[in-house]
Amino acid sequence: MRTLDVEAGPTRYTITIGPALIGDPHACAARIPGRDHLVVTNETVAPLYLDKLRAGLPGRRVQACVLPDGERFKTLATLERVFDALTAHRFNRDAVVIALGGGVVGDMAGFAAACYQRGVGYVQVPTTLLAQVDSSVGGKTGVNLPAGKNLVGAFHQPLAVIADTDTLATLPPRELRAGLAEVIKYGCICDVGFLDWIETRLEALLACDAAALTEAIERSCAIKARVVGEDEREHGLRAILNFGHTFGHAIEAATGYETLLHGEAVALGMLCAADLSCRIGMLEPAAAARIGALLTRAGLPTVTPRIGAARAAELLRLDKKVLAGKVRLVLLDGLGRAVVSDAYPQDALGAVLEERFA
Amino acid sequence: MRTLDVEAGPTRYTITIGPALIGDPHACAARIPGRDHLVVTNETVAPLYLDKLRAGLPGRRVQACVLPDGERFKTLATLERVFDALTAHRFNRDAVVIALGGGVVGDMAGFAAACYQRGVGYVQVPTTLLAQVDSSVGGKTGVNLPAGKNLVGAFHQPLAVIADTDTLATLPPRELRAGLAEVIKYGCICDVGFLDWIETRLEALLACDAAALTEAIERSCAIKARVVGEDEREHGLRAILNFGHTFGHAIEAATGYETLLHGEAVALGMLCAADLSCRIGMLEPAAAARIGALLTRAGLPTVTPRIGAARAAELLRLDKKVLAGKVRLVLLDGLGRAVVSDAYPQDALGAVLEERFA
Repeated sequence: MRTLDVEAGPTRYTITIGPALIGDPHACAARIPGRDHLVVTNETVAPLYLDKLRAGLPGRRVQACVLPDGERFKTLATLERVFDALTAHRFNRDAVVIALGGGVVGDMAGFAAACYQRGVGYVQVPTTLLAQVDSSVGGKTGVNLPAGKNLVGAFHQPLAVIADTDTLATLPPRELRAGLAEVIKYGCICDVGFLDWIETRLEALLACDAAALTEAIERSCAIKARVVGEDEREHGLRAILNFGHTFGHAIEAATGYETLLHGEAVALGMLCAADLSCRIGMLEPAAAARIGALLTRAGLPTVTPRIGAARAAELLRLDKKVLAGKVRLVLLDGLGRAVVSDAYPQDALGAVLEERFA
Repeated sequence: MRTLDVEAGPTRYTITIGPALIGDPHACAARIPGRDHLVVTNETVAPLYLDKLRAGLPGRRVQACVLPDGERFKTLATLERVFDALTAHRFNRDAVVIALGGGVVGDMAGFAAACYQRGVGYVQVPTTLLAQVDSSVGGKTGVNLPAGKNLVGAFHQPLAVIADTDTLATLPPRELRAGLAEVIKYGCICDVGFLDWIETRLEALLACDAAALTEAIERSCAIKARVVGEDEREHGLRAILNFGHTFGHAIEAATGYETLLHGEAVALGMLCAADLSCRIGMLEPAAAARIGALLTRAGLPTVTPRIGAARAAELLRLDKKVLAGKVRLVLLDGLGRAVVSDAYPQDALGAVLEERFA
């Protein structure tokens, strides 16, 4: 069991990482404050871990709100079900909401906690690798609108995060790999030493080795915490965490959010961003090839869907990160050093889109 | 025109108070930042002031979202209409939402702004006296749930407040009087000198005299800002602003939120709280009588609906402010000095409920 302390503005909390945490009162009851809990989870995760989590919270009043599974349920209508559960069980301001599930559950439970009675506490118990390395840090919560993803939400920091690596053994292998895309991202943007380590330990990670996963999660969260800590409200530096995401969002939007997992789209997006970085002379082609090789070994896709260069350009422009008509992108100024830029030549971007999307 | 600067945690904003502000670019465009605005208003206020407000914002992109009028529409479903308007017009993070209306519009528009893209700015243009003296300060936003009022929301401070006293001339006189209940409340809890002033200027206030209203609003907001400034997240002192509200909420709940206006219920609640303060020897009976006389002159009700003492006791206990089973009440330790207490003798409360509700 490893712990990582995260400072988030005026608050701080601890991420506990390791095997066999759910169900262990030393990990759960000891780290989850309060007495009254609403566990927000979904139909896939509840049968696997809800009773186990209850066992980790002896003596607490634990109610559950089991939501349907899937990104398409990350809506205001589903959020209303969480509020209804909170009021039906008469939870008051001392309630602590527990998010048990992946990123969708975490985002909704966290947003419900942010809003209920203008803010109650919540704890994340992420059960996917993506949620463990991404949603554990940053305090972003929210739901989707018909017009786009995460358009409604709040910044709300958890009271604690409990990342049980055992949950990754029940995760579909494809989702584990998609989570690894984000782990690899942290190496690319900030830490070549971590990238070296991932290359060495990739087989152990894919085999759900608890020690390897614990270290990968801890190092990923530490990088994210360092970046977010310097920029809690996303004004500048934090944008480097979106490496691969602007291209990735365009790919997800074009393919309807069903064909590819988020991490898979991010993997493809990182290759686009690396390609552009090479074309403008910021990154060695060998470094881009190294990223591609690692993603391939991790079982992630490396060939972009042919959605058309014009459509890709249009979708890039729709992304939130567009300021004054220019698409801001996260590029690599060498491996391990991400920069945010809208000053690249437009024809270099055009060439990337032609090569990868046409 | 008067201005009042309000410090709210790390932010500060200005409340501008006076006649003929809506429609005047010196009051509107000069004080409302941004270029893209969604005006959230309702079917009653829009025909009166929407075009006027547009005239006060020359050169801006102004879209409107006109909601149905009434507390019963202060729901998540109505909030979704505001989000739909924001996305339909492609507002981004630079958008500034403008709330044009009473407390319901202000609460919903402010909450929509708090959540849209995890937080955009908003400006309050309150058009009722209640909203001008209450919602202008404190940053509370939110909507109701079927289980209760304001159960979902956020603390979100406005960028500016523009309180045009001319709007009070189009307000139904009964609503003006209900707003005066809150003005009188500020005198009772904090400032006997203000209470003296209200007694002197009551006829001018009821006649919508701009100078009198401007001073009443300014002094009320200054008191609220001082109290809230010392306790932004409502841990202690801020509770004195609820003088009359715990009894008032019970009365509103028992009468279905339709019979009495909020300010009328608060007027009745203040008399209950003053009565209890007298019975436990904290307040002179003459002081309680003085409050009653002023409320009567203001045309506010002073006879509590006979909902039954047992029902009243039950509803008091349901209020949010109950800690560990004891009903915390705001009492007067002399006129102009409010205290929060759950240490009063239960039989004194019982006597008040018998006298006023049985």
